[in-house]
Amino acid sequence: MKYVLKVAYDGTNYAGWQVQKNAATIQGALESAVKGLTGCDAVVTGSGRTDAGVHAKGQVCCFSADCTIPPERMADALNSYLPDDISVLDCVEGDAAFDPVRSAKRKTYAYKIYNAPHRDPLRMRYFNHIAQDIDTHALFKAATFFTGIHDFKAYCASGSSAKTTIREIYNIGVDVAETMYGREITIYVTGGGFLYNMVRTIVGTMVGYSFGIISKDRILLSLETGERKLAGKTFAAKGLCLQSVEYELDPFDPDKEPIKDHVIFSIPNDDMPQ
Amino acid sequence: MKYVLKVAYDGTNYAGWQVQKNAATIQGALESAVKGLTGCDAVVTGSGRTDAGVHAKGQVCCFSADCTIPPERMADALNSYLPDDISVLDCVEGDAAFDPVRSAKRKTYAYKIYNAPHRDPLRMRYFNHIAQDIDTHALFKAATFFTGIHDFKAYCASGSSAKTTIREIYNIGVDVAETMYGREITIYVTGGGFLYNMVRTIVGTMVGYSFGIISKDRILLSLETGERKLAGKTFAAKGLCLQSVEYELDPFDPDKEPIKDHVIFSIPNDDMPQ
Repeated sequence: MKYVLKVAYDGTNYAGWQVQKNAATIQGALESAVKGLTGCDAVVTGSGRTDAGVHAKGQVCCFSADCTIPPERMADALNSYLPDDISVLDCVEGDAAFDPVRSAKRKTYAYKIYNAPHRDPLRMRYFNHIAQDIDTHALFKAATFFTGIHDFKAYCASGSSAKTTIREIYNIGVDVAETMYGREITIYVTGGGFLYNMVRTIVGTMVGYSFGIISKDRILLSLETGERKLAGKTFAAKGLCLQSVEYELDPFDPDKEPIKDHVIFSIPNDDMPQ
Repeated sequence: MKYVLKVAYDGTNYAGWQVQKNAATIQGALESAVKGLTGCDAVVTGSGRTDAGVHAKGQVCCFSADCTIPPERMADALNSYLPDDISVLDCVEGDAAFDPVRSAKRKTYAYKIYNAPHRDPLRMRYFNHIAQDIDTHALFKAATFFTGIHDFKAYCASGSSAKTTIREIYNIGVDVAETMYGREITIYVTGGGFLYNMVRTIVGTMVGYSFGIISKDRILLSLETGERKLAGKTFAAKGLCLQSVEYELDPFDPDKEPIKDHVIFSIPNDDMPQ
């Protein structure tokens, strides 16, 4: 049977999604759990890779195994074989045509910033702490520079092997919550695939703009010329979380409205880790 | 100079507040930071102890040191000597009469429960995961059984040396937030001092009531007789956080309305860890 899983993880202690020799990975932990539960040497295929230290609330992946466990029992069964920092949230039977990479239409990453004079130990794991006061209105404005179809070559860490550096950002949402001691800022980036570390570099550039370090003209020039040095810092992995992966037909909720197809800008097969 | 600090910490990797031989503690880490910064062997006195694994957002403590660092620079200065899981949020100069224990009027603890079929790796550190569906209306009702002045002997873990087991709970607030995958329940308990593990046992009993395992009569009888076996489980430390310690005059905000004095039920000197 082909099982489709929705998986959440705390990426702190992992070298990313993809199986590596001599390093703990999310994919490796899931494949070990499948092996422990079913005895099968299945490959667990993810919707895409996440980089070392990046978290996920809604990673989608699948595996095929010669196994009679009904899908609705699979989350509990696998969770008893998984460490506490990985959890299967949902499982359904996938049809033969479902491919977690090729069928994916868009992904949303969330980047969390804790903006307060002093660090908060209870937010250190999932937030990037920035002490300097951020002009949140400037963040709203910066979001508009990146939405749409652009050549994001300047927002791609070296080591990328992407065939094209053109991508479409459907939306960048900025959510600001004031708390007693400081501000929680969450930047949601939704796109049809991303270059290597692109989300973290867009966020670093948006914050650079809000501080007045990077001008609007420089950002527009970075998108025109593709010069990496015009873009801002690549922010730390720990603030980033893969929120959701969406499909034309939601495998977990068949009643959901199908997503309009983006013929050109569907997520490419060489989608890079964030 | 006498410095009064507001401190937050992630208690996961500590054997509690109080200095112990051969174990990492919050007090020990703070005293090391003071020593590193000022060269002084100061004792850092907390408003009370927290138990192993318990977190804090608003612990209050103080120390005296022969040192010229102005209070408004002390948080940053100490934070550079502290590990990431402890942070000084605020610092003011304390007057001679201020005693973080004796001057305290009430404390609020927050207990967090993640109530969802499957565990969430991003909530494992600060939430107690309960898979069985909790009747939140029953929690609201259970809160009323404990508020007021009671003999909480049945809600006191063994090993306590408290002189009296009578305490006053001023308020128990239950906050429920529904999320896509499950429910976050936060139980806020405000009182004038607590017996050993009292908050965690009250919360365990409230949840036992919501499951129909512990009846109202049994709870009332537990408060009458002080029999420990009538009360519920002592819930895990990781869900608990010391939210705030309040003083008649807030040392961090002198303009704040003074708290009405509770002559009998001020926090006792032998207030026990939660």
